[in-house]
Amino acid sequence: MFFMTDIIEKKKRGLKLSKEEIQFVIDGYVNGSISDYQISALLMAIYFKGMDEDETTNLTMAMAYSGETVDLSEIKGIKVDKHSTGGIADTTTLVLVPLASSVGVKIAKMSGRGLGHTGGTIDKLESIPGFCCELDAKTFINSVNTIGAAITGQSKNLVPADKMLYALRDVTATVDSMPLIASSIMSKKIAGGADKIILDVKFGSGAFMKTFEDALELGRLMVKIGNRAERETIAYITDMEQPLGLAIGNAIEVIEAIEVLKGSGHPDLLTLCLEFAAEMMRMAEIESDKSKAVAKLKDSIDTGKALEKFSEIIKNQGGNPKVIQDYSLFPQAKYELEVTAAQDGYVSKIDGVRLGTTAMKLGAGRQKKDDVIDPAVGIWIYKKVGDEVNKGEVFAKILANDRAKLDWAKDEVKEAFEFDLKPTEKRKVIWAKITGDKIAKF
Amino acid sequence: MFFMTDIIEKKKRGLKLSKEEIQFVIDGYVNGSISDYQISALLMAIYFKGMDEDETTNLTMAMAYSGETVDLSEIKGIKVDKHSTGGIADTTTLVLVPLASSVGVKIAKMSGRGLGHTGGTIDKLESIPGFCCELDAKTFINSVNTIGAAITGQSKNLVPADKMLYALRDVTATVDSMPLIASSIMSKKIAGGADKIILDVKFGSGAFMKTFEDALELGRLMVKIGNRAERETIAYITDMEQPLGLAIGNAIEVIEAIEVLKGSGHPDLLTLCLEFAAEMMRMAEIESDKSKAVAKLKDSIDTGKALEKFSEIIKNQGGNPKVIQDYSLFPQAKYELEVTAAQDGYVSKIDGVRLGTTAMKLGAGRQKKDDVIDPAVGIWIYKKVGDEVNKGEVFAKILANDRAKLDWAKDEVKEAFEFDLKPTEKRKVIWAKITGDKIAKF
Repeated sequence: MFFMTDIIEKKKRGLKLSKEEIQFVIDGYVNGSISDYQISALLMAIYFKGMDEDETTNLTMAMAYSGETVDLSEIKGIKVDKHSTGGIADTTTLVLVPLASSVGVKIAKMSGRGLGHTGGTIDKLESIPGFCCELDAKTFINSVNTIGAAITGQSKNLVPADKMLYALRDVTATVDSMPLIASSIMSKKIAGGADKIILDVKFGSGAFMKTFEDALELGRLMVKIGNRAERETIAYITDMEQPLGLAIGNAIEVIEAIEVLKGSGHPDLLTLCLEFAAEMMRMAEIESDKSKAVAKLKDSIDTGKALEKFSEIIKNQGGNPKVIQDYSLFPQAKYELEVTAAQDGYVSKIDGVRLGTTAMKLGAGRQKKDDVIDPAVGIWIYKKVGDEVNKGEVFAKILANDRAKLDWAKDEVKEAFEFDLKPTEKRKVIWAKITGDKIAKF
Repeated sequence: MFFMTDIIEKKKRGLKLSKEEIQFVIDGYVNGSISDYQISALLMAIYFKGMDEDETTNLTMAMAYSGETVDLSEIKGIKVDKHSTGGIADTTTLVLVPLASSVGVKIAKMSGRGLGHTGGTIDKLESIPGFCCELDAKTFINSVNTIGAAITGQSKNLVPADKMLYALRDVTATVDSMPLIASSIMSKKIAGGADKIILDVKFGSGAFMKTFEDALELGRLMVKIGNRAERETIAYITDMEQPLGLAIGNAIEVIEAIEVLKGSGHPDLLTLCLEFAAEMMRMAEIESDKSKAVAKLKDSIDTGKALEKFSEIIKNQGGNPKVIQDYSLFPQAKYELEVTAAQDGYVSKIDGVRLGTTAMKLGAGRQKKDDVIDPAVGIWIYKKVGDEVNKGEVFAKILANDRAKLDWAKDEVKEAFEFDLKPTEKRKVIWAKITGDKIAKF
């Protein structure tokens, strides 16, 4: 028999909560016997006093099994999932799913919509005419077994404890706590049924974690939780000091993914996708030799196999695969405005949050839960940090459906870019990789 | 325009909240626009990060004016209130009201019932047959103007913010925070309309503050708040390592108060009452010379004036004043059991909490809000720390209405007393007095 007040008091004093106490908290919160106000007091105590690895793992597991879980056992082979902590112009998943699938990795991908600068993976895919992301469990699993990959929205009954806790943290200033962040992410991954997990922990001005050190801490914690939960887990610490790819929007992010699969994507995005896909091949026990894996992946792009896989996935989920060759089949924005450089120079900084917020205000993302996303709008950027620009050269393009916002958006995009007369160094994409206790810096 | 999340975040980071922010929190909580779960997160952040004197004063004032306040302006003279942080066998108020009133101090006393080992002052007074503590404002003020003193229960609409916050703190493990404790007490005192305030901050095993240092900190903080709120406030730090008086119950505490007014009370209780009453005379500008004040008070006891005043108060509020001469008019317990010493020795320790809990379980106090108090039951102790006892001598007496509890209560009382063969030093009653920034140790 536990009392919530005792549990709050214990954490307040910095003592360790037992597995049973944590289970009591999560069970009670989900079944309504523990109130929001006791949970929020506990969350604040956790913010100040932290949780150790045992506690964080126990919290993760209690959350993961607080509702339905996904059973992927009917899919043959090792299922590897990838999760990103979120960034700007990050269409990695849309490249990774067909790319890894094209070399034999089974991908049962569950994705979210969510709030943010642009929609989630599901929102992006829905910009493909006809594409359906609401697969029932059977169709989802059959699809993976038949064509090797499927993408579906998250079941509403998955990880209810996380949904409740996240909503509460959001309004009680208790979001920024490492054990709470780690357990929130990992509980969803574990409930999602994957055997192995690749985490993309981003850091920088455009990421939730502002510093490399914080991202490293979060990554290490999540890797530990995953491994203790008997899901082989590795984490990459990757750059979000500038947008990852070139497209910030929904339809245009699908287009950018297609470009990568066609072999003409931006090298930064390609680098990350090749790294993750090769790692997926190793974890799925398809190819343990990294350079061989990368060679196979490059070959899959060069021969069109990866692109063909994307076409197959689109067709399988009711979408029109012709979008791959004809981008005009995507929803089109009424207005386009190019942004040009005022003088010669080099891009020294890109404020990704400012670009993301601008895209969101153009309609590409949701500010509130029930906002409707406009798939057509967004921002293309053509230059990244270190790139040279000439006076009058177009370095970004705005796609909008509201003429009144065009000039404002142009000013925002201009403000988001900083230029320098001297060449600036290009930024690394991958900074570190965490495997078990090992940290490999890139 | 304030956002509660920003305010929680600010306190979480240890920043100072403005007067307006604190007002927003209290207003919003009382009017229902701010939820319990945001308040409890803020309370926990306050627990960890504290509040400075400005913040605590602003919180106190926002709470004090969150509901009705008492207007004592129609009572001539300076109104001085006394507040105790609570102790065992503490019937000071019942002595102080008639005693100070008998020498001309106007006493408009509002008291509570509340949870605890015994009832509150109101519960105790209601053990006098006919005594009514539910005076309307007009009768209350008229009584003070006519006979010099009146005692009434607290209006339900007084300081609603404190009632709400206290209930929330109780279930979120955020009770033990100095600024929250200080603002809770002081908001009630300020709303109660007194011009000047004497605080009795108790420390020791039987008090909320366990150490002298904690009591001193709380006392200093409350004195500062009171003075900043333009209510001259002083605080005493007094002993609660053992019960103050000899009676733990309701009717028997009234009897003990009568005994003090008759000049035959325990010296510890008398000492405290004379000190407080003399200070009240100074604050009410009746007698600034301490020794003259004490002499007048002693004279009032010796001549029967103080007792006569109590009789007047009882009569005025519908009670039977004959109880003063005939204790058999009080509700009587069916069973009495004397506790005797097993051998010769000296009392070295008395566990007041154990005695208080025993009294409560006999029916003298409330465990839950709607428990009914039994006015007749309780525990008399006849020895205090340092007193000599002889083998077979009665050192306590149990009054009960439930025969089945007698033996258990006897064991509890025996366990609560520790004896030593060597003489033990008697304990000081008053340890320190705080006036402004000055601390006088006794």
